[in-house]
Parts: sequence; C-alpha cells; structure tokens
Amino acid sequence: MTNTAYEAWLNYGQLKSGSLYNQYIDWCVELVVTEDNETIQAAAAEFIQGMTSMLGKAPLLTAKPEGPCIVIGTFQGGNPLISRVFAGERTDSLGPEGFLIRTNATEQCIAVGASTPVGILYGVFHLLRLIGTESEIDALNLSMSPVNGLRMINHWDNFDGSIERGYAGRSFFYESNQFLNDTKRLRDYARLMSSVGINAISINNVNVHELESLFITEQYLPDIALIAGIFRVYGIKLFLSANFASPIQIGALETADPLDPAVRQWWKDKAGEVYRVIPDFGGFVVKADSENRPGPFTYGRDHADGANMLGEALEPFGGIVIWRCFVYNCKQDWRDRKTDRARAAYDHFKPLDGRFNDNVVLQIKNGPMDFQVREPVSPLFGALEHTNHLMEFQIAQEYTGQQRHLCYLVPQWKEVLDFNTYAKGQTTLVKHIVDGSVWGNKYNGVAAVTNVGDDMNWTGHGLAQANLYGYGRLIWNPELTAKEIAEEWIRLTFGTDKGLVVAIRGMLMDSWRIYESYTAPLGVGWMVNPDHHYGPNVDGCEYAKWGTYHYADHKGIGVDRSVKSGTGYSGQYMGLNASNYENLASCPEELLLFFHHVPYTHVLQSGQTVIQHIYDTHFEGAEQAAQLLATWESLEGSMDSGLYVQVKQRLEEQAEHAQEWRDRINTYFYRKSGIEDLKGRKIY
Amino acid sequence: MTNTAYEAWLNYGQLKSGSLYNQYIDWCVELVVTEDNETIQAAAAEFIQGMTSMLGKAPLLTAKPEGPCIVIGTFQGGNPLISRVFAGERTDSLGPEGFLIRTNATEQCIAVGASTPVGILYGVFHLLRLIGTESEIDALNLSMSPVNGLRMINHWDNFDGSIERGYAGRSFFYESNQFLNDTKRLRDYARLMSSVGINAISINNVNVHELESLFITEQYLPDIALIAGIFRVYGIKLFLSANFASPIQIGALETADPLDPAVRQWWKDKAGEVYRVIPDFGGFVVKADSENRPGPFTYGRDHADGANMLGEALEPFGGIVIWRCFVYNCKQDWRDRKTDRARAAYDHFKPLDGRFNDNVVLQIKNGPMDFQVREPVSPLFGALEHTNHLMEFQIAQEYTGQQRHLCYLVPQWKEVLDFNTYAKGQTTLVKHIVDGSVWGNKYNGVAAVTNVGDDMNWTGHGLAQANLYGYGRLIWNPELTAKEIAEEWIRLTFGTDKGLVVAIRGMLMDSWRIYESYTAPLGVGWMVNPDHHYGPNVDGCEYAKWGTYHYADHKGIGVDRSVKSGTGYSGQYMGLNASNYENLASCPEELLLFFHHVPYTHVLQSGQTVIQHIYDTHFEGAEQAAQLLATWESLEGSMDSGLYVQVKQRLEEQAEHAQEWRDRINTYFYRKSGIEDLKGRKIY
Repeated sequence: MTNTAYEAWLNYGQLKSGSLYNQYIDWCVELVVTEDNETIQAAAAEFIQGMTSMLGKAPLLTAKPEGPCIVIGTFQGGNPLISRVFAGERTDSLGPEGFLIRTNATEQCIAVGASTPVGILYGVFHLLRLIGTESEIDALNLSMSPVNGLRMINHWDNFDGSIERGYAGRSFFYESNQFLNDTKRLRDYARLMSSVGINAISINNVNVHELESLFITEQYLPDIALIAGIFRVYGIKLFLSANFASPIQIGALETADPLDPAVRQWWKDKAGEVYRVIPDFGGFVVKADSENRPGPFTYGRDHADGANMLGEALEPFGGIVIWRCFVYNCKQDWRDRKTDRARAAYDHFKPLDGRFNDNVVLQIKNGPMDFQVREPVSPLFGALEHTNHLMEFQIAQEYTGQQRHLCYLVPQWKEVLDFNTYAKGQTTLVKHIVDGSVWGNKYNGVAAVTNVGDDMNWTGHGLAQANLYGYGRLIWNPELTAKEIAEEWIRLTFGTDKGLVVAIRGMLMDSWRIYESYTAPLGVGWMVNPDHHYGPNVDGCEYAKWGTYHYADHKGIGVDRSVKSGTGYSGQYMGLNASNYENLASCPEELLLFFHHVPYTHVLQSGQTVIQHIYDTHFEGAEQAAQLLATWESLEGSMDSGLYVQVKQRLEEQAEHAQEWRDRINTYFYRKSGIEDLKGRKIY
Repeated sequence: MTNTAYEAWLNYGQLKSGSLYNQYIDWCVELVVTEDNETIQAAAAEFIQGMTSMLGKAPLLTAKPEGPCIVIGTFQGGNPLISRVFAGERTDSLGPEGFLIRTNATEQCIAVGASTPVGILYGVFHLLRLIGTESEIDALNLSMSPVNGLRMINHWDNFDGSIERGYAGRSFFYESNQFLNDTKRLRDYARLMSSVGINAISINNVNVHELESLFITEQYLPDIALIAGIFRVYGIKLFLSANFASPIQIGALETADPLDPAVRQWWKDKAGEVYRVIPDFGGFVVKADSENRPGPFTYGRDHADGANMLGEALEPFGGIVIWRCFVYNCKQDWRDRKTDRARAAYDHFKPLDGRFNDNVVLQIKNGPMDFQVREPVSPLFGALEHTNHLMEFQIAQEYTGQQRHLCYLVPQWKEVLDFNTYAKGQTTLVKHIVDGSVWGNKYNGVAAVTNVGDDMNWTGHGLAQANLYGYGRLIWNPELTAKEIAEEWIRLTFGTDKGLVVAIRGMLMDSWRIYESYTAPLGVGWMVNPDHHYGPNVDGCEYAKWGTYHYADHKGIGVDRSVKSGTGYSGQYMGLNASNYENLASCPEELLLFFHHVPYTHVLQSGQTVIQHIYDTHFEGAEQAAQLLATWESLEGSMDSGLYVQVKQRLEEQAEHAQEWRDRINTYFYRKSGIEDLKGRKIY
C-alpha cells in the first residue's frame, strides 16, 4: 500500500506522457539561479524536487543557461536574464510578496520575478502548481499578489503535546513540555504553508498555561528561534500567544495593570529580549478577559488599554498585537434571557473603535458565536472604521465533524467573505473590509485555527487537507471559487484523472450542506455534546453557562434576537441586513432559528413546516452521507491506496454517525412536539 | 479552629462531669489484660486511648487488678477473672466474632469475653461506644455477634492514586503507581473499620488496569503484605480485585479460557504464590464480562466456568472468589426498546444457580440498575437458592450527591434489607437471604463501595462519615434502625448535647428523601450528566449506550417494564411483588416511572397529576435543601469549629445546586409537556 498523505498537495505525482508533459520537459531543461539567498535557494530546491518527481528528470541547476530554461530572481538581483525579461515592467504595484511569471520565447525562458525572495518562492510554488495541475506554460503572462496582508495560521498547541480542539493527533512542536525540534517535519510544514501563501503562524494555544507563559523567556527562546529560523526561509513570521498576566506570573510584579508604569516597562523590556533572539518576531496573539483568561478588566481597564500597552512595547521592533474579540459572559445563567452571547463582541469592541494603536489588530471570529456550521456574519465587520482587524476562521472542524466527517469549509468561508455589510455604501463586502481596501487599514487579513497535528497525513481525515489548502488559497485571492480551489487541490493530491476529479470535487462541494442537513437545522446551532463538542445532543448546551441556547419547547424553537421583541441583536447590523434579520418574513431561512423563535408549524418558503423540514433534512442528510461513502468506493483503484483506505474508514464512520444524528435529532423533536412525520418514516 | 474530622467517630471527646462520668471513672481504674496477642493488645491500647481522652484519666494496665476494673480476654485465654465471670455461660453460639460483656459486682469488674481475639476487639469497641454515647455501664449483660458473615468494603482505588467514583480526594493506598505505605493512616483506617465491624476489604478497583494486574506478582506482594499485616491486627482480611485476563497479561499464556488446563494451573500456581506471602489472604473480587472487562464469554464459557476456575485455585488455601453480577449490555442501541438493562443480572445469573463452587460468592448490587437514589430491589435476591451471594451497596454517593450533597443512605439500605421477596413462604426478607439464614449459605453478607479518600476528614463531606459508620453498624446488625445508628454516630462524633443530636439526626433522616425530591421523581433515575454523573441533565443518559432511558415525550414518561406490554422485568419478581409491580394501580408510586410509562396527567394517590408532582417535589426539595443549611447554621458554636465550617460550605453548595436541579428538571418537563404549574411558580 502506497501512501502519499504526508506529502499532501506537494506529493508531485508523476505526470502522464503526452503533449503537456513534453512541453514541461522542453522548458525545464535548466533552472537558472544567481542569487545566494536562503529563500531563493529553497525555491530552487523545491522546483528541482517537484520537477524531478513530476517529470522523472531533474532540471540542471545553473547560473548561465545554454538553452530553454526556467529562471528565477529578484528584479534587483543582477541576473541579466531576469533584467531583460522584466525590463520596462511596472513592478511597484506587486508589493513585497507578489510575483510575475513570463514565458519569453525570445529569451527561451520562463521567468519568475519578484521584488523579494519570498515573492520568488511564491512564484515558484505557483509555477509548480500550474504544472502539477497540467496547465499550459507556453505563454504565461501572470502577475499575482496576495490580496490580504496577514495570512495567518493559529495553533492551539499546548506544551504538553495536546492540541485544544485538535483532531489530527498530537502537536508536532511539543511533547511532554519539551520542544520536539523535529526539523524535517517543521520544514515540510513550512513548505506546505508557504506553498499556499501563509506568512504568519502563531505556535501556541491562545489559552496560555503556566509553562507556555515562559516561552518569552531565555529558557525557551532558543528553541523558538529554531522554529522561527525554519519559518523565515519560507516567508513565515512566527507569533506567540501571550499571557496577559505574565508580569505577575513570570515577572516579579504584583499587578498586570496595563496603565501601571512598571508593567509597561516590563513588557517593553520583555519585547527587547524576544527581539534580540528573534529579530523578525511577528508579535503577540492575545486572548484576554475571555473564558476565564486574565485581562485588563481585572484592573478596571478596557481592551484598548490592554492591547495598546502591548502595542507600545512591540512598536519599536515592528511587532504587532493581535487581540481577539472572542469576549462574552461565559458564566451566564441559562435562566437569563436578556443576555445574548451573540451581541457580546460588538458590544465590547464597537465602542472602542478608534482607540487602538496603529500596530494593534483585532481578530474577529467569522460569526458572533463560535464556528457553528451556520451562523450569520459577525456584525463587527463593517462596524470598525478606525481599527485594524482580521477575520478569524477555524480550519479545525470543531463543530463541523472534527475531521471524522467530511466538511469542506471553503464554501462557508466564501459566503462570509462575500457578505455585504452595507457599511460604506450599497456594496461593502466583508472581503474588502478584511483586505483593508475599504478603510485603508495598515494591517489586515485573515487568521485561522489550524487543523493539523502529528498524524501522518497532518489533518486526520485525508480530505480535510482540502480545508488547509483551501484556506491559504482563498485568502491569497478571495476571488477564487470554492470549486476552483477544490479542483486544484484534487489535481495536486490525487492526480488529474477527470472522473476522479469530478467525483471528489462533487463530494467536497456538497459536504458542508450535507453536514448541516443532518446536524443543525435552520441556523439553530449548539445541539452537540458539551465539552468535546462531537456528536448530537439537542439539549447538550441548553442549560450551560456558555450562552448557547435554543429554547425548544413543545410548541417551537429558536432565539428571538429581534429588536422588537428579542435581544436586539439584529440591530447590530446595518442597512438591509438589520431589517432582513429583524423580520420573520425576510429573514434568510437558513438562519431562521438563529434570529427568531417560531412554532414547529411555521411554514417555510418550501411550503413545509419547520418540523417537517427538520425531519426531511435529517433523513436526506443521512442518505447523502451514505452516498458520499458510495461515491468514494466507486473510486477504489484510481488513487493512492493509503489515501483511499484512510478516507474510506472516515466516510464509513460518518455514514453511521449521520444516522445517529438523524435519529437523535428527529426523536428529540418528535417526542417534544408530538407531530408525526408526514412521510411516516421511523422515528423513535 | 479545632478539627476532629480525621479522628471521626473515634475522636473520643471529653465527657461532661456528672453521675455517668463518675460511674465510668469508678469502673475504669484498671484494665486487666493477660494475653499477649496483637489484636488483644490493640484492643487494650484502643481502650486506654479512648478512656484517657474521654475521662481525662488513664486506666492502669495490669495483669492483676486490685479493685474495680475492666477485664478483657478470651474464654480459653487463662485469665482467672474472665474464667470466673463467664463460668457456665453458653458461648458456642457466639461464633468466632461475637463477644459478651458483663458487669459483675461480685468480681468488681466489667468483663469483655470472646472466643477469639477479634471478638475481644469488637467487644472493646462496643464498650467504648457505650461510654462515648453516655450509656449506663453498671449492669451490662450483653451478648453480641455479627449477623452477616462477610462485612466487606470495596475500594475502587487505582494505582495511579485516582479513585473511580471517589469524592474524597485521592487514594491513601497509592500515588503515581507506588505504594504510599502510610502506616499511620492505614492503621487509623483499620481502627475505624474494625470499630464498626468490617472484616474484609478489597483494596483496588474492580476495573483492574495494567499495572494493578501485577499486584499478585512478587513485584508488589510485599507492599500488599504490609497492608494485610495492619488489617490483620484489626480482624480484617485483605482482598484484591483480579483481572480475568491475567494469564495473558502477566502470564505467558495466549488464552485465559477457564477450561484450559494450562490456565487453571496458572491460577493455582498464582494462588500459591500469593498465599506464601499473605497466608490469610481473603481472595479475589472479579468484575468479568462487564463494561468491557475481560471474562469467560470470550471463550464461549459462562460465569460459572470462570468463577469456578478461580475458586478451585483458591480453595486449598481457604480463599474465596467474589464474582460481581453487574453484567449487562453496555453497548445497547437506545432505539432498541426490547433490551432492558434492569433484566440483565437476573437473566445472566438465575440460570446458573447451583453451578457455582462452594467458595464462590456472587456479589449483587442492591438494585437492578446502578445505585440510583431510588430503585426496586434486585430480583436476584430470592432467586438464587443454591448459590452463595452478597449484597452490594455503594457508600460512595455516585448518584446521590457525590458527598457534596447530604444524603444519609442508611434508610435506603434498610428498605432494601427489609424488602420481602416472597422467595420462601410469605415472609422472606432480603436481610435473611443475605445473612445466609434462609438457605444456609456457607458464605453470606454485604459488601459496599467505600466513600473514603485521602481528604483529611476521609469522606469529603463531614456528614458523609455517617454513611461509612452506618454501613458497618447496619450490616453487623440489620435490626438497628437508621435513627439509632444516626444518633450513635452523632453522639460519638459531635458529643451528646441533646439539641444538637436532635437537629443533626433530623437532617440525616430527612436527607435521602430531600435529595430524591429535587432530583429524580417517582423512580425515574438517570437524569444526570453522563460520565461524571453529577448534576441534573434530564436527557443526559437518554441516548446513551448504557441502557439508561426514561422515554419522556410531550405526553408522558417512564419505562414500561410490565410483562403484559413492556420488557417483562416485573415478571422476575415472586409472589405479590410481581403483580404489584405489573399493575399500574398497585405499583408503589415511588417506583411508578421505573415500571410504567404514564401520561403527565396520570393522577397519583395524592390527587396530584404526575407533572404537578414533579413541580411540587422539586420546589419543595429545593426549599428543604435550603432548610438543611439553615438548621446547620443554628448549630454554630455548639461543635468543633472545623467540622462546622466544612459542612456549612457543603450545605451552601447543596442549597444552591438544588435550585439548579429544581429549575432544570421543571423547565425540561414544562417545555416538553406545555402544562402549567397549578401554583404559578416560576419555571423557565
């Protein structure tokens, strides 16, 4: 049994012979590199590795070509071929990470040019992707730059080796409170991330425990510098999650009050220490006053006070503070219907707009709750005119099947990015807020909680690699469609067989809707087991302190978040969004129960009642989950056998578990409502 | 702040001066002991310690008294005073553990006589108890023997120091896979247990993990022998829980098939090894084919095959096998309404009656499920005419508040022991089956899962000591009332102030009903959080694989276990029990929902509907829980301050948590049924 799962989309499978193969062979006789830079050298090595593997023939590395060649180099790097090919090109709009690729018949070369080494690296990865997906390269004329500034990955890895919300094994950074220093895996991880444009990674959990608080001390900085050094080659800045209470916990201070001069000085000194060891350190990610984490509230200060203090400390070194907006009352009494967790981020941060320093960036989850399969877009997007901010996605499938169920999340992220906020005129899409273009933010972009661990295939579920790949590609260019991204990933991972590509692409594209259909109907959310969040439990979070309620009774279900009669959450939106969500008649039905409490007999646009919709979607969803497995089984023999078997096992579990979801959800609502299924199917 | 919690009921508080005090002083000038036996010496030491503490004056230890004295000795021990006092007494019916106490004016002594040293020890503890509770000793004429043969404690302690279902800290036997060898604590524990008549203790969890499987090897037997040696002095035999798969796991065999000659020989050899190190080793406790533990089913054998194999190995050494009957399908599909966990123990073991060896003892949980606050008595009691068996109680409050809520369990155990099975004639009480008198079993008695840990006060909740004390006293003599036992314990623990005794006794006596009232209505059970089993969660076990369902829907609730239309469980009972449980009209209402599925509108004998009963009991129960706290607070200053504060904190938690129970249960049923509370109280 072969298994290319570890190599993932960089497995560089052997290409079929034919005209395209010949085209690649013709162009790739030589690789011309003249610059002695570690990133450019890495790009060259990647290219040679990739081409050797795909073509079965290694290109010759040279400084002076003697025939058709690939040439890579920076515009100012002195390579005469690069200078000639790009003479007269406008390169200033490319930015520091963009690249150009030109096929130049006169010069008999394909040239990858950029202003910086990392631009070269991205260009090489792109050229490899073009070849790996079997695209023509005879007449390339590409100019590409990433749309978002920060393209970040957040690890929730703990020093003990566990990963909070990790579904793909243990950490590959740490084990048993020691750094693993597995340089091969770290380098391969950096390659994977860089290949899809990731330029920032925070390596420890935002819940910073005791030992991790010491990461910013001389005890651990050398180990972290080793990781940063590997990342640096691949254009990735290393960030650390910081503990707001560090001045007390690891300093000798008795307070962490952000307005206390001694505290401010402590952080400044600390920043100096970090930058002495890691000169290009990215900065801190901070979860403060959130789910029992320490923060400025302890001292009667607000989030701006807290974040700005850290910003001030990092500013001289060019570092930034990424301050999470996941702040809400996590000790809510379930009897209290006035408090609404959905309101919390907006209520906390909107009043602070404009108070944050230039190097402070707020990180806002895509929805107001917590990565449910379906949520509205956070109303903070559009509400922060004078504040740097990032989108936060979750690649880890915490609430979407935990990498045991298939759920390709790019379509969900697309919907979020394409959402119109009405913040500045009639069309103000989230993606244009996030990329900084609407308000000209200095820092902008997207972060996401990763789905990787030390599993051989990185992501537990073999097909969950598509989310990791897709995340990077989407935020590099949000205009790519989910389908295009899926197809790229399939071709790079499985090869270009058309039937196989179409089948897997269909599975991926359908998977989010399928998962939604047999789990959470109409935007209700949270019908999962508490703590681990896997599997159905309709009342699992109903009496919890986390603000996660659906209020189902024998008559109906849903949360009234209207201004008129509910929590007023819908009033946090602008323009048409506010009125659409406010009114039952105009509320998008996929979010009906998020915004309104309705009787089970409420009739949807389909003509079905809510209860019948629940029954129907759950029966259908379980059938579709079974169909995913059947589709996969039809592909046996047409791919790497290791990948096939691993994914098959996951799909079997999904098909079976989808029935459990179906039966538990249907039974719960049947027992509660007493309303029969119109189609007379078995409910328990 | 003083704190006598560690000494518990052996704290031997100073007695008040007065005529009784003078009586004790008069008799206890000297203690006469002539036998050099470690158990009798321990009895003497206990007496001196107790009297010194209670009277402020040490009795003189002597072999030849010169005036009024206490004399202790075996009938055959050669002490002339003992011989004279007990001359002509019939002592054969006392048995090996009984004792006589006589006040003999002529001889100017109070004599404690017995056939064995442990009888002396029990007699001395009893005399100390009489004095500690301020009883007259001027004319004692007592003959006492334990009613049950085995009076056992089961520890569920793990070698890593954790305790399964432990609510009073960590193990005091082990920590981090090492023996603690804390001889002082072990000796004090043995004293406490012996003082209430415990004569057998198994020291490791019935779920025997990898390392604990090695307890029966030379690696660990010396440590275990040390514990056994301490226990031995106090008349307690040490037992170990054994892993049925040991021949594979720690032997070199490839099977644990009980009919395989090599396996049988392995166990015989193993028994020999154990008895060479611990000559009075009690035997093995075994959980087999239960909740994923290995057992004879793997080899197509039955429980008799498995147990008899072990019995055969232990037989030459006088050891016994205690084989648990907690066997059921723990992978049930919640959709399957035919399988009924309640039936399982009977269905498994009744057909095997008569097949077990003489030294095999079945251990049967008091109810058919698992230590719920209310269950019927297991129908196996009365059904096993030809098999040794023990009752299994749980002192640990797994489902009755986990030693954070007050729940004095002796009244529950009394009800179980006093249950009439109709097994042999019109009156065949469980207690007479358990004590062996109905069928003349060679081995008989009671075991219980303990509630102790390394908490300073042993049991977490200070008042939970009453369950530990009460368990021992009750099974020594099941004719004692729960109230008598409570009063003894209070007097020994807190002193004899009448107001205090009455107040605490009232709290204890009410506590089980109170706990029941705000938690599980009408015998329904299982409305707890899964896994840890603490706190309300009506559907917490409803979709589980453990066979723990209540089937609540919008119309009604309960499990139909009738023969006529349900699982047939009621048919496992004999005589009137079967018909009483079978029929809704005659079913005891406290077990109504255990045996029947009824509409919420079903009218109880009280005239209330089931739903109104749920509302009423939950409102009342929460009020009564608050009243427990108020009563306790009225006792401030009248007891040891350490005990006072500790218990007050627990009662505060209980009062608050009872409200959570009230509101979650009421809300669940209100939302589900839509039926209003007739009294218009707040339901959410």
